[in-house]
Amino acid sequence: MAGNSFGQAFRVTTAGEAHGPGNLVIIDGCPAGLSLTEDDLRGDLARRRPGQSSIVTQRDEPDEPEILSGVFEGRTTGTSIAILVRNRDQRSRDYADIRDKYRPGHADYSFDAKFGLRDYRGGGRSSARETTVRVAAGAVAKKLIAEQFGGQVVAYVAQVGDIVAEIPDPAAVTLDQVETLPNGEPNIVRCPDAATASKMVSLIEAVRSEQNSIGGVAEIVATGVPAGLGEPVFDKLKADLGKALFSLPAVLGVEYGIGFGCAALRGTENNDVFYADQSAGGQRIATRTNRHGGMLGGISTGMPIVMRAAVKPTSSVPIAQETVTAQGESTTISTKGRHDPCLLPRFIPMAEAMVALVLADHWLRLGTSRLGPAS
Amino acid sequence: MAGNSFGQAFRVTTAGEAHGPGNLVIIDGCPAGLSLTEDDLRGDLARRRPGQSSIVTQRDEPDEPEILSGVFEGRTTGTSIAILVRNRDQRSRDYADIRDKYRPGHADYSFDAKFGLRDYRGGGRSSARETTVRVAAGAVAKKLIAEQFGGQVVAYVAQVGDIVAEIPDPAAVTLDQVETLPNGEPNIVRCPDAATASKMVSLIEAVRSEQNSIGGVAEIVATGVPAGLGEPVFDKLKADLGKALFSLPAVLGVEYGIGFGCAALRGTENNDVFYADQSAGGQRIATRTNRHGGMLGGISTGMPIVMRAAVKPTSSVPIAQETVTAQGESTTISTKGRHDPCLLPRFIPMAEAMVALVLADHWLRLGTSRLGPAS
Amino acid sequence: MAGNSFGQAFRVTTAGEAHGPGNLVIIDGCPAGLSLTEDDLRGDLARRRPGQSSIVTQRDEPDEPEILSGVFEGRTTGTSIAILVRNRDQRSRDYADIRDKYRPGHADYSFDAKFGLRDYRGGGRSSARETTVRVAAGAVAKKLIAEQFGGQVVAYVAQVGDIVAEIPDPAAVTLDQVETLPNGEPNIVRCPDAATASKMVSLIEAVRSEQNSIGGVAEIVATGVPAGLGEPVFDKLKADLGKALFSLPAVLGVEYGIGFGCAALRGTENNDVFYADQSAGGQRIATRTNRHGGMLGGISTGMPIVMRAAVKPTSSVPIAQETVTAQGESTTISTKGRHDPCLLPRFIPMAEAMVALVLADHWLRLGTSRLGPAS
Amino acid sequence: MAGNSFGQAFRVTTAGEAHGPGNLVIIDGCPAGLSLTEDDLRGDLARRRPGQSSIVTQRDEPDEPEILSGVFEGRTTGTSIAILVRNRDQRSRDYADIRDKYRPGHADYSFDAKFGLRDYRGGGRSSARETTVRVAAGAVAKKLIAEQFGGQVVAYVAQVGDIVAEIPDPAAVTLDQVETLPNGEPNIVRCPDAATASKMVSLIEAVRSEQNSIGGVAEIVATGVPAGLGEPVFDKLKADLGKALFSLPAVLGVEYGIGFGCAALRGTENNDVFYADQSAGGQRIATRTNRHGGMLGGISTGMPIVMRAAVKPTSSVPIAQETVTAQGESTTISTKGRHDPCLLPRFIPMAEAMVALVLADHWLRLGTSRLGPAS
Repeated sequence: MAGNSFGQAFRVTTAGEAHGPGNLVIIDGCPAGLSLTEDDLRGDLARRRPGQSSIVTQRDEPDEPEILSGVFEGRTTGTSIAILVRNRDQRSRDYADIRDKYRPGHADYSFDAKFGLRDYRGGGRSSARETTVRVAAGAVAKKLIAEQFGGQVVAYVAQVGDIVAEIPDPAAVTLDQVETLPNGEPNIVRCPDAATASKMVSLIEAVRSEQNSIGGVAEIVATGVPAGLGEPVFDKLKADLGKALFSLPAVLGVEYGIGFGCAALRGTENNDVFYADQSAGGQRIATRTNRHGGMLGGISTGMPIVMRAAVKPTSSVPIAQETVTAQGESTTISTKGRHDPCLLPRFIPMAEAMVALVLADHWLRLGTSRLGPAS
Repeated sequence: MAGNSFGQAFRVTTAGEAHGPGNLVIIDGCPAGLSLTEDDLRGDLARRRPGQSSIVTQRDEPDEPEILSGVFEGRTTGTSIAILVRNRDQRSRDYADIRDKYRPGHADYSFDAKFGLRDYRGGGRSSARETTVRVAAGAVAKKLIAEQFGGQVVAYVAQVGDIVAEIPDPAAVTLDQVETLPNGEPNIVRCPDAATASKMVSLIEAVRSEQNSIGGVAEIVATGVPAGLGEPVFDKLKADLGKALFSLPAVLGVEYGIGFGCAALRGTENNDVFYADQSAGGQRIATRTNRHGGMLGGISTGMPIVMRAAVKPTSSVPIAQETVTAQGESTTISTKGRHDPCLLPRFIPMAEAMVALVLADHWLRLGTSRLGPAS
Repeated sequence: MAGNSFGQAFRVTTAGEAHGPGNLVIIDGCPAGLSLTEDDLRGDLARRRPGQSSIVTQRDEPDEPEILSGVFEGRTTGTSIAILVRNRDQRSRDYADIRDKYRPGHADYSFDAKFGLRDYRGGGRSSARETTVRVAAGAVAKKLIAEQFGGQVVAYVAQVGDIVAEIPDPAAVTLDQVETLPNGEPNIVRCPDAATASKMVSLIEAVRSEQNSIGGVAEIVATGVPAGLGEPVFDKLKADLGKALFSLPAVLGVEYGIGFGCAALRGTENNDVFYADQSAGGQRIATRTNRHGGMLGGISTGMPIVMRAAVKPTSSVPIAQETVTAQGESTTISTKGRHDPCLLPRFIPMAEAMVALVLADHWLRLGTSRLGPAS
Repeated sequence: MAGNSFGQAFRVTTAGEAHGPGNLVIIDGCPAGLSLTEDDLRGDLARRRPGQSSIVTQRDEPDEPEILSGVFEGRTTGTSIAILVRNRDQRSRDYADIRDKYRPGHADYSFDAKFGLRDYRGGGRSSARETTVRVAAGAVAKKLIAEQFGGQVVAYVAQVGDIVAEIPDPAAVTLDQVETLPNGEPNIVRCPDAATASKMVSLIEAVRSEQNSIGGVAEIVATGVPAGLGEPVFDKLKADLGKALFSLPAVLGVEYGIGFGCAALRGTENNDVFYADQSAGGQRIATRTNRHGGMLGGISTGMPIVMRAAVKPTSSVPIAQETVTAQGESTTISTKGRHDPCLLPRFIPMAEAMVALVLADHWLRLGTSRLGPAS
């Protein structure tokens, strides 16, 4: 009821705050037999980690995961998997400012209105720090879908401010392109269009020097997803994916396939034509275009799933902003903490994780959709 | 697990197909004491009804609701409320065409891939006809939120094709403006900008004469919503609203507040400044602008909730389209049934219903967020 | 939240009252491909039907089911299945007595305390009439488990008052023995020990002539259930079965296997010894005795599941009983309606239905317990 | 789906194994504002702790809880509360015996049948060690119900083997009587009938010297519970309490009120007569007897809730027992680990915890049962 769980068959429940002892997740429903160690989690945690590059927050967290249950001799046992990531760099600083003042763009006021009190240290439960364990759980989901049906989820930065990347084929983008530039250096902004990536980095640096922040758009692509995932009515795949992405902090918009562009089209311009693809050895029903973003009637079609999420500029900025205190007195606030000038580079693994969680969940649910052979 | 339920505290479960005996909904969790009769449902059902105007499908359905349980002497009893809407105009026509061919843009193929069989009559469970009872349940939710906190949900058509309405203040749009033109005639396209509405109707008529269809954008506004609705992590209000709208057929994109426009903004341009509003008698924390669309940290702030949904053009068009049969043979299909040339006018009450269901649900959930006085 | 749903993967949601228009159930999660017609439901509905024999209530209800959705051309489609059973014999009598007086043993007072109002006609939602559609849904579950793994659920009356049946082997009792006496006449009390059945009938008739009622015990046996059903912690099979039986009206106790008898035993007397059963062709792990009632650690072992439920005497009796009005004034009440002198004969199909629902649910859940082969 | 969560509004999710790093629970839905520290958990954890007396297992665990989230400045924040209890006394012994052999009465075989593999160290997830964090969560629930409505849950041992306590009035038993003998010494068997307690201790010691174990019965009483808790159909209070108790290891039977004794009674003998109790200052509807155990129609009546649970003798005994290996070969097994000769003394806090969790859950759910005043 209080909304700290997500998913039906592959279900995660999280806890933790920005400046408490740590964050943790319990995964309930991961099938027995999946090989799993902490190493499987470290890759994506490092991609989400603060302090990873010059254009993200400099809070220093190792984000070292500890698997507390559900794994025995390197394999999942089918019982609940708990993962704990302790916070290390909680600064013992003065929180008086954010205790009494409502930061613009943050959840301070709405938390107070809801609960009557709040953990104000770094945003408490409303901080994006709670996504640490979403990313850990997402890494488990990624393993599951990769092993079960060859599913892959890759996200990347498609836009920062008014700089827009050119991505000829979203389904062809590789994790390597997202993480590494052609020259072998880290792709710190995570835009696979290298020329644009460089401009994005410059913009982010300029914005930071202005003591401001900047928004952007992420694109998330899932390939290898078989047709049939998603349920017909409320739990459409697009609906659960939409919820998954909107559940991430700072997301103000989500679209898939042609998205908002569909509004200006006629039916014949928007529909994707079916054909029988013989290229894969056997015959496979496919579409010649993918304006439907891999989902029809809310159920996957076997075409790549392509989604986009709009991410607002970081609400915390060093520039002084007008606001009020909890008592309603006018004041100003200037965020002196360590914040990302642009959320997008670290948003990428979070978005991938949420999409992977939905795919793992619906993969398991697919198993009960039709009668199996009698046993 | 099969996704025919929505909501936690105010929970609806639906059943029914386009050409079966009817559609029904069970509402579980409506509190006792709400006055309710079939009359409360008829208004919105009429707004969703096929055959209501010259620019929608001409299928003739009275959509007469029957309350089967949960109401006694005109009041809800706190037990489950069942509402049945029988189908009347199921034509006994030849379905051979859609039995064997996959209609572009429809769920025929994905249903077959998932279930191994499907009710092909008019789309079966994937038809928008299943939204009939969502609208009925939404009418109950609207009553609940209106009586409990003065909440109102009004949606309208903001765009059809490339025609975009001018709406200076979304929160000021009234149901009356949406339903009736200044000259007293029905506003059949449901755009409160009367001049633009007329152009939209012309475009829809032109598209229909081309034997084609056209997309658009709906805007949904909820006013009177107190601060505090929504849960911090996965069940953010924006996440549940996003899922609600994406669960409707044909929705390819959802945004709230400034939406995708946030990508190009700096933090100081995007943040809404808090102030103490003294105009309401007492003091109320408010924001001077509403780029955050009434939600921060996924929790309502008391400002109007403003969302937008992109709706694709109707997939069924009379023009012949290429496709394949279930066996993979190339063929063409031309939809001769009764279809809407533009989904938007009838989408409006569906969108309102889904938003109202989410608000009713989170209103009830809010009641358990903090300790009450000891009894 | 309001508790009108049951099950996770095979989930039923019900609505309806004793004297409203009817009762209905939506089954969400029944896999596609199961053959199903109304005929599959009529058998168990007839076993639960009032007026079926001289020792049950004489309310006359045909209990004719109508499948409203989820079935196409005789097979389930994987979408939600709705079943409606209309009430026919609602008497237009004077309810003033039960409107104002709290009937001993009934839910009148607790409903008022909870909801502030109640549908007092025949008990409204608290009436056992709501079990009609549980039995209909249970018939679907029985078909599913029979076709998928040869599962069978048979219940029978083991005790009425102080008359106790002798059942040498619960797992050997057949539906035919429960329904028909050796002489071919209907076994109206549903006790497979024919000599005892006759005594039970006499006792029930005597109790009725005393204007009183009598309690009893039902035994429920599920055979053919494979090892592995049930989840390790909260959703143990015994826990879900326990909840299922306690959710039926009038059940005051539930036990399985040796039940309360375990309290007096030593470990070595209670444990069932494992052995390798070679009789079934291949090798199967089994136990030589079945004091564990087919479940260990809350998970089925492949041995017959044997449960017992204590059912209290009908609370409504013609003899005048002391009570109070809603205002707290002393009064007496004497139930003149049509009531069962003993609930047990009609309880049998209800208990079977609830057990079948749990088994169908956990069978589907079993499918996600371990990794399948990669696809 | 995998059943590691319990409750709807006050929902706990657990993880952990007997010999893994530890056990943990996330509580989702505890309202903001409850004062809470680790000290609130230590009392009940000590009552459940191994090694607490001479008649329980001698495994030495401090069972020290760490609250990882959801509490700020000594009060709950309304966000998820995580509690971790690390295992300390995992012996590095040889598990070869239980890896290959199926222990009679244990879940070894059913886990293997379900998952295809298992954590065999001390029973893994099937060990009663997982109840540690249920007891911690139950302590939070106890605080909530005590502060909100003065609710109290007290359990005690009513029977060990064939020794039955005399408890004239279950609702009058105090925690102090359960924990301390009249002479001030610890009541290590937790039977409030001191004379009987002494006999029970002697029996347990005798059984232990026989290298055997013994069963018993616990009685659980909740007082101060207002009328109105519980939902009408599936989530009856008795159903959720039944599930709660059956979800505990070793429970083979549950009853409430007169329980199985109802079978032999007539309606007039079983019904409890309502009257208006003026003793409490105002008027309160009550019953003169409590054969209904505080629940009618599955909803609390305001009378004490009285339940009983049958607990089997510990399955692990030092005496050698026949069994089979996983490969089906005959063998014997003799448990040399540290085990309780009788589970009852440590079962008491577990049973209290489960009952408290159900009451906290239904208390929160009660808040949404009827319309509040308009805001």
